Amino acid sequence: MEIIRSNFKINLHKVYQAIEEADFFAIDGEFSGISDGPSVTALTSGFDTPEERYQKLKKHSMDFLLFQFGLCTFKYDHIDSKHITKSFNFYVFPKPFSRSSPDVKFVCQSSSIDFLASQGFDFNKVFCSGIPYLNQEEERQLREQLDEKRAQANGAGAPTKCPVTIPEDQRKFIDQVIEKIEDFLQNEEKSLDLEPCTGFQRKLIYQTLSWKYPKGIHVETLETEKKERHIVISKVDEEERKRREQEKYAKEQEELNDAVGFSRVIHAIANSGKLVVGHNMLLDVMHTIHQFYCPLPADLNEFKEMTTCVFPRLLDTKLMASTQPFKDIINNTSLAELEKRLKETPFDPPKVESAEGFPSYDTASEQLHEAGYDAYITGLCFLSMANYLGSLLGPPKVCVSTRSKLIEPFFNKLFLMRVMDIPYLNLEGPDLQPKRDHVLHVTFPKEWKTSDLYQLFSAFGNIQISWIDDTSAFVSLSQPEQVQIAVNTSKYAESYRIQTYAEYVGRKREDKQVKRKWTEDSWKEVDRKQPNMPGPRSHTNSFTATGMIGKRNLSPDPGESGSEDRELEGISDSELEQIDSCADPLPEGRKKAKKLKRMKKELSLAGTVADGPAVLFEVPDTW
Amino acid sequence: MEIIRSNFKINLHKVYQAIEEADFFAIDGEFSGISDGPSVTALTSGFDTPEERYQKLKKHSMDFLLFQFGLCTFKYDHIDSKHITKSFNFYVFPKPFSRSSPDVKFVCQSSSIDFLASQGFDFNKVFCSGIPYLNQEEERQLREQLDEKRAQANGAGAPTKCPVTIPEDQRKFIDQVIEKIEDFLQNEEKSLDLEPCTGFQRKLIYQTLSWKYPKGIHVETLETEKKERHIVISKVDEEERKRREQEKYAKEQEELNDAVGFSRVIHAIANSGKLVVGHNMLLDVMHTIHQFYCPLPADLNEFKEMTTCVFPRLLDTKLMASTQPFKDIINNTSLAELEKRLKETPFDPPKVESAEGFPSYDTASEQLHEAGYDAYITGLCFLSMANYLGSLLGPPKVCVSTRSKLIEPFFNKLFLMRVMDIPYLNLEGPDLQPKRDHVLHVTFPKEWKTSDLYQLFSAFGNIQISWIDDTSAFVSLSQPEQVQIAVNTSKYAESYRIQTYAEYVGRKREDKQVKRKWTEDSWKEVDRKQPNMPGPRSHTNSFTATGMIGKRNLSPDPGESGSEDRELEGISDSELEQIDSCADPLPEGRKKAKKLKRMKKELSLAGTVADGPAVLFEVPDTW
Repeated sequence: MEIIRSNFKINLHKVYQAIEEADFFAIDGEFSGISDGPSVTALTSGFDTPEERYQKLKKHSMDFLLFQFGLCTFKYDHIDSKHITKSFNFYVFPKPFSRSSPDVKFVCQSSSIDFLASQGFDFNKVFCSGIPYLNQEEERQLREQLDEKRAQANGAGAPTKCPVTIPEDQRKFIDQVIEKIEDFLQNEEKSLDLEPCTGFQRKLIYQTLSWKYPKGIHVETLETEKKERHIVISKVDEEERKRREQEKYAKEQEELNDAVGFSRVIHAIANSGKLVVGHNMLLDVMHTIHQFYCPLPADLNEFKEMTTCVFPRLLDTKLMASTQPFKDIINNTSLAELEKRLKETPFDPPKVESAEGFPSYDTASEQLHEAGYDAYITGLCFLSMANYLGSLLGPPKVCVSTRSKLIEPFFNKLFLMRVMDIPYLNLEGPDLQPKRDHVLHVTFPKEWKTSDLYQLFSAFGNIQISWIDDTSAFVSLSQPEQVQIAVNTSKYAESYRIQTYAEYVGRKREDKQVKRKWTEDSWKEVDRKQPNMPGPRSHTNSFTATGMIGKRNLSPDPGESGSEDRELEGISDSELEQIDSCADPLPEGRKKAKKLKRMKKELSLAGTVADGPAVLFEVPDTW
Repeated sequence: MEIIRSNFKINLHKVYQAIEEADFFAIDGEFSGISDGPSVTALTSGFDTPEERYQKLKKHSMDFLLFQFGLCTFKYDHIDSKHITKSFNFYVFPKPFSRSSPDVKFVCQSSSIDFLASQGFDFNKVFCSGIPYLNQEEERQLREQLDEKRAQANGAGAPTKCPVTIPEDQRKFIDQVIEKIEDFLQNEEKSLDLEPCTGFQRKLIYQTLSWKYPKGIHVETLETEKKERHIVISKVDEEERKRREQEKYAKEQEELNDAVGFSRVIHAIANSGKLVVGHNMLLDVMHTIHQFYCPLPADLNEFKEMTTCVFPRLLDTKLMASTQPFKDIINNTSLAELEKRLKETPFDPPKVESAEGFPSYDTASEQLHEAGYDAYITGLCFLSMANYLGSLLGPPKVCVSTRSKLIEPFFNKLFLMRVMDIPYLNLEGPDLQPKRDHVLHVTFPKEWKTSDLYQLFSAFGNIQISWIDDTSAFVSLSQPEQVQIAVNTSKYAESYRIQTYAEYVGRKREDKQVKRKWTEDSWKEVDRKQPNMPGPRSHTNSFTATGMIGKRNLSPDPGESGSEDRELEGISDSELEQIDSCADPLPEGRKKAKKLKRMKKELSLAGTVADGPAVLFEVPDTW
């Protein structure tokens, strides 16, 4: 279902309902660009640490706009044993809603725009009909502005107690206005239109009248057809005044809700606490938080806390497909290829049907890169892989629940693109720290090309090169023993320099500490370090003001089994048995169970800081 | 006529022809945003110097994209006494033309995008069908890349003289390739397809074959349907080899021209040296040079030189309409209002007709903010005003030539938006320097609002406030004598500070010198100060490499009266008499002639550095 500015309000209850009844969601975003940096390759070096990758994406990708958001909700129908889907394709655009509202600037990358254009993406729909949105700070400011305006308007706040200071050159003007009002109060007219005047003059009029006539008149600003603003004064009794105030209040409240717009959908997803599935979803998650919550924190750990606050359970299908037992049977993990592969043996495509009133997608005729469709097939991929895990059990489990222990190992681990030895960003704890004792850091003249590096290391057999920038790269050798030989032979070289990965990291850390000392001396930096976190508010999904990031204030969802964010931890063994029937694998299921164990072991390395090199995942070179 | 990517090449000759036969052009651009800064108001302070304004626009506006360019050519038909117009509306987009081409990032301002969307602007046409372009540096790089590639390919350059160093792990691969080729040379086959391989391997193959087989075979890289690149080798005699080379060269040349794309239209306009008319055209000119020639220089004087090199004669209709004799009879100089006003007495709308095959615009049903239409009515406005000047002569001149002395005072002076006392940027010399001895510079706490300033200066009667930023503003008093009183009374103030304009400028200059000393110590800055100016090239419109900006290398245009850029200076008095018949005004024309003299005097102040305050132009607060 396509949702744009004009049909957003009328369909919002359908979105809310779909979110409420769903077992899980799949999401996908389309952006105006991917990398604002020199190149995508530089953005994704093969030996980035998760910290470095986060910083790069934060610095070079957050100025782009997420302008299409796909949401597909999945609800299991136990009677007919099929999943009922509701797919939404939202067009999103930060249309300024008033003269004082933020005028967002965003960057477009021509290659991304050109790619979307070639896929038939409708930019006019984004720019002409995109649903507006506000982040939490903007929403807070708008609320404050409204409150202030309301307090300023007559009647709502305490009347001004002392006469206003009127600048010399405005006295004549204000005197004339008062004269007019005195006449008006004597005559039979019900209302009086003042001449259009400046904002400053209107402010003076409001203040003067609030002091001189605290009761009995109603003052409001209207706009003429020519967009000129003028004040209208009317005689009202107390009851009528209150009615008008309430009417105005309700209207303003509605306008505020309209301005918050699409953010309300994200809040609803977040508040549900349900599983959110995405494919290669790190950028989607970062953009979603950045655009609809608040600017991303400088520190990766804060980002992890913030993310698990907003989305307590995330699952990345690209990571899942790159992990055992799937890694061995899936060659290409790009979304389109994955979707095709998961229809074939040994996989069994899930039974799905779109809900009544929702158009159904045909996976045979691809509509890739429409966010709603991509979300839909991401959900299909998840189901197919989850069910495959169920089929490995003895007896096989046909439909795997989103609360199954089987998929728990994949929770809150987001795929890291093109990192050679760290498959994912771990949102729930420290990241993997592979030793990288076979890796060298090489600096060289900017004229050097890949072939020069191959030539330099030609004595070392197979090497892998991972460019950092024009004048440096990581080179990984096949055997760690070769590392010291390479460093030693390079000692007298003039044009290039080789150091071990450990040396490189050590020096970088030193540099960083020196830098940090410097910046801490500068008040500007310190100031920037204190992000403007929104305070506690009446709506449910906000961060508390006590810590930098507090616990999410979740409204309990009756559809969920517990009020804790991490329900799985509370599931008893017998419950698990019931769900998955894998407590005691039968002989014929033993081989399959072994596969499962291998997978769990592989991923569990992330729970503790691994000291040795992590299991090397195969990371295909496609998005 | 709408010109997009698909019909650009087929219509380019029409564009060239229209440019060649025209008397003058009108242009207009539509951008993805106006101000990247905190706000448009901050961007245009009322007391900006031209230098400051240039720096602000350069810093805050050049990241936006000029994505629609309107060109309307005007040619006078002496027989039917009417102007024949050809209007072109170009959609422009920096589509990357290959994997190694620049991936342009541009900024969008949501308010601008929203405004264009509300006017029915077609963004899909821009992004899906925009004509690509290159600036001169990118064009130079592309040419170099092509030359290099050509030299690398076999036959074109000198064959490699020594054996290539093959890395250990590639030796087996290369040996196999050579073996295959040896077989191929013995057999009857005409061509041999090698397996797809990496770019590095292809390079090794090219180098090896160029050394081993300098003659007799032709090597080229082709792409399979799956986008895999593989090498094809064919047996050729010398003649066939040359033919193939030439074919390839011609194809590459065409691809290069396609990539230069829309820039060729701008080059043609520039090379013609003809009058280019625009409305409030400073941003149009800056964007055009930035996007299709080279990044704007840091220094305003360099920008002036560069601009007069590219466009030797510019005329801004907004400046014209804000100057005597028009100032007194034109209230609103926004393009739409100006166009309407210039249809009424005492003006006489020019007779225009669109050329055959060109759709005609109807000014009754506005199509504002389509660049082609805006260019068209800008041209109409110019003609109407020029003819009005002619009507003031005795005897009246019905049609004023673009070379008339009457309009010369308006050449190369670009309207400055919202500057109180400097109406234009003077491209041909130093700018006006009004004394501003009635102006104060005030700094204050950021809580202050306009009303606080009014209150502070309430004893001084009428004041004008021009905000600089949150904590400072210029305040102009009605009488210069009050300035010292204000400064003196503020001496003991704690919350705010007042200084004279002269003091403010002096301090700012000192700061700048200190800053410059600092940055000159840093090699990075010095490096950046040497812009990468393109060297002399074979195509006509480029800057020479000798000076920072040399004289434009114009190809003489037979349609022009002289080969000098500034023809008007070479026109004799008698010629002038013939053109305008205003050498000896008849008695009844004397009053009108006086008006003309006043206008000329007003504008001629710009020729020398004015010491006293310049004539105050009325600058309406609309774009």
